[in-house]
Parts: sequence; structure tokens; C-alpha cells
Amino acid sequence: MTIVDIAPAPAPAPAAAQLAHTLPDLDWITDPARVARLSQDFAWFSPVLKRQLADKRADIAVRPRSEDEIRAVVAACARDGVPITVRGSGTGNYGQAVPLFGGVVLDLSGYNGFGWVRGDVGRAQAGIRLAEFDKQARPHGCELRWLPSTFRSATLGGLFGGGFGGAGSITYGPMAAPGNVLGARVMSVEPEPQVLELRGAEAMLLHHVYGTNGIVLELEVALAPAIPWLECVAAFPSFDAGLEFSSLLAAAPGIVKKEICFLSSAVLGLIPQLGDLVQAGESAVLLLLAPSSEAAAQALAQRHGGRIVQRRDDAEVKKSNRTLLEYTWNHTTLCALKLDKTLTYIQSRFQASKHVAQAKELERMLGGEVLMHLEFLRGMDGAANCSGLQLVRYRDDARLEEVMQIHRDLGVGINDPHVFVLEDGQQGVLDPAVLAMKARLDPQGLLNPGKLRGWPAAPASAPR
Amino acid sequence: MTIVDIAPAPAPAPAAAQLAHTLPDLDWITDPARVARLSQDFAWFSPVLKRQLADKRADIAVRPRSEDEIRAVVAACARDGVPITVRGSGTGNYGQAVPLFGGVVLDLSGYNGFGWVRGDVGRAQAGIRLAEFDKQARPHGCELRWLPSTFRSATLGGLFGGGFGGAGSITYGPMAAPGNVLGARVMSVEPEPQVLELRGAEAMLLHHVYGTNGIVLELEVALAPAIPWLECVAAFPSFDAGLEFSSLLAAAPGIVKKEICFLSSAVLGLIPQLGDLVQAGESAVLLLLAPSSEAAAQALAQRHGGRIVQRRDDAEVKKSNRTLLEYTWNHTTLCALKLDKTLTYIQSRFQASKHVAQAKELERMLGGEVLMHLEFLRGMDGAANCSGLQLVRYRDDARLEEVMQIHRDLGVGINDPHVFVLEDGQQGVLDPAVLAMKARLDPQGLLNPGKLRGWPAAPASAPR
Repeated sequence: MTIVDIAPAPAPAPAAAQLAHTLPDLDWITDPARVARLSQDFAWFSPVLKRQLADKRADIAVRPRSEDEIRAVVAACARDGVPITVRGSGTGNYGQAVPLFGGVVLDLSGYNGFGWVRGDVGRAQAGIRLAEFDKQARPHGCELRWLPSTFRSATLGGLFGGGFGGAGSITYGPMAAPGNVLGARVMSVEPEPQVLELRGAEAMLLHHVYGTNGIVLELEVALAPAIPWLECVAAFPSFDAGLEFSSLLAAAPGIVKKEICFLSSAVLGLIPQLGDLVQAGESAVLLLLAPSSEAAAQALAQRHGGRIVQRRDDAEVKKSNRTLLEYTWNHTTLCALKLDKTLTYIQSRFQASKHVAQAKELERMLGGEVLMHLEFLRGMDGAANCSGLQLVRYRDDARLEEVMQIHRDLGVGINDPHVFVLEDGQQGVLDPAVLAMKARLDPQGLLNPGKLRGWPAAPASAPR
Repeated sequence: MTIVDIAPAPAPAPAAAQLAHTLPDLDWITDPARVARLSQDFAWFSPVLKRQLADKRADIAVRPRSEDEIRAVVAACARDGVPITVRGSGTGNYGQAVPLFGGVVLDLSGYNGFGWVRGDVGRAQAGIRLAEFDKQARPHGCELRWLPSTFRSATLGGLFGGGFGGAGSITYGPMAAPGNVLGARVMSVEPEPQVLELRGAEAMLLHHVYGTNGIVLELEVALAPAIPWLECVAAFPSFDAGLEFSSLLAAAPGIVKKEICFLSSAVLGLIPQLGDLVQAGESAVLLLLAPSSEAAAQALAQRHGGRIVQRRDDAEVKKSNRTLLEYTWNHTTLCALKLDKTLTYIQSRFQASKHVAQAKELERMLGGEVLMHLEFLRGMDGAANCSGLQLVRYRDDARLEEVMQIHRDLGVGINDPHVFVLEDGQQGVLDPAVLAMKARLDPQGLLNPGKLRGWPAAPASAPR
């Protein structure tokens, strides 16, 4: 966690405000309240970021509907030295979409055409919502490999630019694992913008860098076969029983699943919709299972003293238009924070094969202050593991730092969600090729300035 | 490897021969040459088993076409104390289908009706060939999760009763992993045979026990989504490069594959159809990939100095009616042994995460005598790993035992394919529940007597 001192946002810069007059046919947003909303994301999960980013806003926002419109805005910004912050639906949690230096918010949510499905590959414009992509892919027998809990509103480009994975990562690993994202059509920020198709590893240089090194126009992704997922909640008599069940289920190769979310009884106490299903002191596991895997998962649960307290098949889920996915990943955090404003959270990376012991030890040391929420997944190396989205009873920044250090001391890595500078969230490590791509696609440094420490803010957008 | 002294087979026992007269409407096989063929499997891969089992044969064989016909044979055998050896297509390698005490071979290859596909579950009679099951499942968008290299002739019941898994185990683990096999309809051997439906773990008590503890009539299995697999051969400049590529590919969660078979240059020298594709000294990896995973797999191969030397898409494979699968698993062994009769093989279990180092060390110690062939898979615990089907230049039984001991000393387990007693192949360990199931379904001990050390041969079938 790094506390960065940033001056309050100034009045709209003339160059940015002028764009609406230069390009009158575009869908500009100038109303200050709407621009302010389009300058925020879910960084308020963090009391630190909330404080640091509350008053940061763009001078103007625009919602282009075509590549030509995007090109017109980008060319104008490059000519005038106006910063550009690319945005999907703003469901990020790290201030990815918050402009630190004013300028234009380029809201791509209107650039949302579905392209095609060919075999097990699909392609769409960056602004497509994930739920819409899935709806379009399903008649082809396909679905997205990963679905964050924000899938209803989150965009494909937003997931790629600022996300990780989500449900589905238990099978396919994070979005970053080779084979998941096949290509990206990208635009450079120059007076004469270039458009390139990047494939494979080269496309991945634009992944999870908050739109700092190129504008992603389209994405081509490998798809999963569509499965009519069964949604279940299993209750367990203890923390350990639920945890051990989750870990064994995560690893089991013959049990096909899309989601395993472990919630301690303390977390369940903050989410009545789930808490009402279990007894006091019980932990719970939220599951999305292939129908054929139900019996094996149930047998495993029973061996851990568990019982299924909610079961809904795909038809029931679709009819109700409610899914357990919206209680997992950062929706767990959202639900809890709605109820208790004093909470915040951390994100942690456990060590495969040690993860169960580490989680037990953390619960012993910090239970009551840190409320355990684990998402099971396969890592980049394919090993079954979990990552934590623990809720934290926030006291002050110093104690929050201490809590994170206790995790690190146990070998549990922290992806600090209380920083907005990319390198700080990634332990200062950034692939030099990411910066090389920025040099190639954003030579003036106009994209989301201030988020990459390894790149100076553009002259025209010095902190103000 | 245990050398068991078994007396030569006697002349047909009157009770068994009499069955054809008692049940004249059934399809009996009495011709001695045909009965002898139906009393053998691929145990000849082992010079030890070849010697021990060469003259073992049933008194008679029968090919029932319905459950009623099976029931009639079984009831008669139970009344008269006639041993029953259940058989699919006889593609096993451990003498599973070789009757040690005469009696009847119950050839289930005619009991082969396809049942149904419902969602991601399929059901069929035990004698269905795996290729036929896949053909029936494909219009439903499904395929079998595992496919041994013998899939054209091997039966579903045979795979369950005497097999392991095969292609597909890299995703779904061995057939034994929970969630893969959902249920079995089984018949007891009694004067009034009972028919039971066993589910989940209970059904698995009949898996890989050579038909010793019950007769499997039908199987219900979880299916995989059908994928138009791309078949590739990649060549690598060295043993290590091909091995390391295989191991990383096996673990990669975003790369969807059905088969990764690593063959050292020594093995390739014995299989001209593959050896002709590579340069001297190169190793090769045989791959079945989802089409969307081709680029990522190719990029990984290139990083290991590899190149794709053969590539055929699903349509080309189907048109040619030839698949790389028939050069993997025990078909590799078969191809090599056809060319060089002095070879035999071993089966080994590596340790996940140590498997690459173990394989390199074995190559260093035994290269030239033991020719490396590795099949990559996920174990019961879901960890990416490999199992070996190494070819061995056979000298004598003592050296073969020594070679296996060298593996064990390095921590590489041996599933000894030179024994026919079940416990010997499994290090003497057998779940007591397997024997309890035998007590329940075969109280007279008539099923495949002599294969289970933990169960005495039936009085009527004392070694003769």
C-alpha cells in the first residue's frame, strides 16, 4: 500500500472540453454529475483508495459507437495532448478507470458488437457485456471460460484490461494462462492512429495493465463448451471441514465445476441471503457443477459432514434470473460492504499444496478481524489452489498494512487492492515488454497517466 | 513380479461342456481353436506371462445377446460350480481374460446395446465397443472422457474391468477418479442370480478387478463435450526439450488437450510411421488439441526448439480413418513389439512435480536398455504428472526385476505388467471392500478364479 499525494482535480481543461465541438456528431457526456460517475469505479471498497480517488474526474466523457468514432477521438486527443482513460462498465476495484489527470473518459460500453463463434473460438468488440457474449455464444454450444461476479454489467474489454478471471478459473486458470485469449485488435494513440492485430503472447501484453499501453478494440477468446450448470450451496459443520472439502473438490479431475467459493461462518453472517441457509458456526461452499458431477460432489461433501442446503438446476437459475455467482468473488465483498460500511478487504495468493494449512493458520491468527473468503482456482501452472478475498474489519491504514504483512510472512502473497499504481499491486514487477508495448502504442504517454510508475506522465497532463 | 507355478490345463471339464446341451439356444463356441483364442489377451507383451499363460484355456465359450441369456448361463454355472471368466474383446495386457481353471468364457462383446445420452451422462451395455459408444454419443455433442489406444475393439466393460483410462486422462484423470463412472448394473453368480444397480463409489468396487467380484452388465458414465480434436506430432531437438514441453503443456490450464504422449528417439526408431517424421536424435510428442489451443501449444513448442512435423484436423483424421491415438499408450508397445520380438515393457507411476527429474535420471541410468515412453495425465489428486510405458530390451526375468527395482529406488512406482494376480500388480494392496463385494456377488468364488490372492479358488475349480 503506497499513499500517493495527488492534488485535487482542477476545472475542465479547455483542450478536453473543446473536443465536443471539434467532433460534434459523437455521443459526448458533459454533465458534471454524469462525468463524475463515469470517472469512478468500485475503488471505494478500499478506504485508502476512496480517500485518494474520490475527487478525481475527467473533463469530459465520450461513448463511441464505431471504430471510426474511436479513431476520431483518439486522433484529436493525440493532436491536443489530452489524456485518455479507457473504461468499460467501471466494475474494477483498483481505480483502473479513474482518470488521475482529467482529460477524456473513453467509455467503450457502446462499442459492443458481437462478432462470431467459429468452433471453440469467439470474437467481439471490447465493450460487449460478458452476459451478452455468453447469450450470443450459447446457441453455438459455447460459453465464456471465465465469468467474474460482475458479468451482467462488466465488459469483455474491461475484464481483459483490469480483471483476472473468475468463475471458470477453477478449470481454465486465470485469463492470463496461455490458450485463453487468442488475439486482440488494438489502436495506438497517435495523430494518425494505427490499428493492429496482436496474437497470443503479444496480445497478453495489454492484459491487466488498466488500458495504459494501447486501446483494445476487439478480443478473440477461446471458449468453453456450454454446460447447464447446477448451482448448490453446501453447509459444513466447521471451518476446516468446508475448507478441506473445497480443496479436494477443486483438485478432483473427474468432477467438472465452474465455481468453488468457500465462505466462513463470519462472512455468512454478513450475507443474510446465504446466512439464512446455514446454522450458526457452519461454513458454506457455493458450487457450480456439471450435472453429471452432482453425485460425486455430494458424496465428497457427505464425507466431510456437509449437506446440500440449496440446489437449483440451470432451468431454475435461468427462470429466477438469480445466480449464486453474484455472491462470489468481489460480489461477496460488495454484499458485505453494503451491510457493514466499516469493512474492507484484501486479495491474497496462497501457495498450492500449502493453501489449506495456510488458510487454517490465518483463521487461527486473525479470525474475527479477517473474515475468510476463498475462491478456488487453477494457477498459471495448473495446480489447484485458492486465492483469498478476505473481508477485513478496518481500523486504520497501519493495521491494514500489518494484516497484509502477516499474510506475507506466512508465504501468502498479497495483491494489494489499496493501491492504484500498477506496479504496487504487483510487487513492483512489470514485464519490460509491457513498457515496450506502451512505447509502441502510446508514445505520448496519454493513456491513463499516473497508473504506470515506469512511465512518466505526459507533459500536457502534469498533476494538477 | 511373482512366478506362480500353475499346472497345464486339463481336457474340457464335463460340467462346462454340458452347458451347451443344457442351454441349446445360446451362441456357444466349442471349436478348440476358437475357444483357445477367446482364452487369451495381450499378456504376450510380457515374456513372463506368455510363458505362464500360454496353455491356459476355457472349456467352452459363450456369447450371450441378452440379460436373460447371461442369467441362464450364470445360473447354470452356479448350480454346477463352473468357473466363469468374463471377457470383452480381450485387449487387456495382464491375462485378465485368461481362465486359469477352465470353465466358461463369458464373452460379452455381443451384449453391446447403446442405451442413452441424457445431458452429460451416457449409458450402455458392457460389451459395447468404445468407438461405437463415441459414434452414438457424438450426435448428442458428447464423447467418452477416456479412450485407450485399443478403442476400436475394446469394450466399455473391458475398460472398466481391466483398464485404467487412456487419452482424456490428461483432463479427467483415470477412470477411477470420482465423477467419471456414475453407476453399474451388476449380476451376482448364484443359482438365482440377482441384478443390482450400484452407484458411485460402490460401483467402483468392481473397477479394475478383472471381473472377479461381479458381472458388470451396464455402465453409466459421465461424458465430455465432443471436440473436433486436432492431431499433431511435434519434434524436439533433445530428450529434455520434448519432456519439458510435455510437462508444461500437461499442466497448462488454458490449453485444452486429450493426449500428450512423449516418445524418445529410441522409441521412434522402432515405429517407422513416426520415426520417418523426425530427424535422428529428436524426441517427439503426439498431441490431440482443441482447435483453439493450437496456437498456444505451438508457441510453447517453439520456445522448446520444437516444430510441428505433422498436423491433421478432425476432418482429415476422420477421412483417413487413422488416428495418432493408435500410436499411444499400449499401441506404442504393440507397434514396437511387432517389429522387435525381443522387447517387452514396464508400467510406471511417476511422482507429480518430480516426474521430469525422475524421467531424466532414468534416461541417464538406463537409456538404451529402457526406451522412454511417457503418457501425461492428471492423477487421482488432479496433479499433472506422467506414467511410463517404457519399452525394455528383455534379457531375463532377473534383469527385468532389477530394472523395475531401479525405478522403485528412484521413487517411481511400478504397476508390474508381468503378473496376473491382482494384488501383485498393486503392491499387495486391495481395498477390503472389494473382497466384501465378492462375498456378496460371487459367494461360491466362481468368477475368474486364481486372480485374487485374497480369495481361495472355488472347490470345484481347484488347480488342475
